[in-house]
Amino acid sequence: MIRRVHHIGVAVSNLEEATRAYQALGLAVERVEEVPTEQVRVAFIPVGETHIELLEPTSPASPVARFLEKRGPGVHHLCFLVEDVAQALGLARDAGLSVLDEKPRMGAGGAQVCFIHPKSTGGVLVELWQGEHA
Amino acid sequence: MIRRVHHIGVAVSNLEEATRAYQALGLAVERVEEVPTEQVRVAFIPVGETHIELLEPTSPASPVARFLEKRGPGVHHLCFLVEDVAQALGLARDAGLSVLDEKPRMGAGGAQVCFIHPKSTGGVLVELWQGEHA
Repeated sequence: MIRRVHHIGVAVSNLEEATRAYQALGLAVERVEEVPTEQVRVAFIPVGETHIELLEPTSPASPVARFLEKRGPGVHHLCFLVEDVAQALGLARDAGLSVLDEKPRMGAGGAQVCFIHPKSTGGVLVELWQGEHA
Repeated sequence: MIRRVHHIGVAVSNLEEATRAYQALGLAVERVEEVPTEQVRVAFIPVGETHIELLEPTSPASPVARFLEKRGPGVHHLCFLVEDVAQALGLARDAGLSVLDEKPRMGAGGAQVCFIHPKSTGGVLVELWQGEHA
């Protein structure tokens, strides 16, 4: 059902500063995008079959800003690429996991996504992602 | 230099409980091992070309126990597979990153590893890994 890690979301307070560290390790930023719906700027850094997404809040009301306030910088969520997100959501719910979406919703690039609460997954906010977008 | 994400280390207080969540999503535990040097029990869960390592402390003195106390459960570190860990460590140091090892040291399965402090990498403890062990 899960094919691979689609991306690893990392909350940072300064995108340029965090980017430099990954560049020092030989990784390259593919692109930087602003995502107004989530109030973040995102740097996409490919690594093998997955990528790291550095997330910098653009407003204090951004969920990422609240995460930074509460926990400081660090991994914000793990996203898995699935074949069928509605099916995956159903299985997660049936297994008693605390799902944050009643049904899949629209994500970036036309993807269908849903989220599972960290309390069900050992403290990790999990995103499930179905779509063609890399 | 970095080939892929080797593993994603997740600190959990209860291995069996956390394991159940990933199993509900269709992932399978490959093996569970105790690592006495780190005072943890580890569940290895393959996902695509990487794997998730759930880390449960076996002693209050374990670094993972201290992490849980301070931050609660969640992603503890990201490990990248590199071709040459000594070279990677040198580049990281030259770039001003805060490295936790003067030189690579022995990791699991005969691997050579080193760590980079979270303050240099947007809040993520980074492990660099050179070795044949999956």
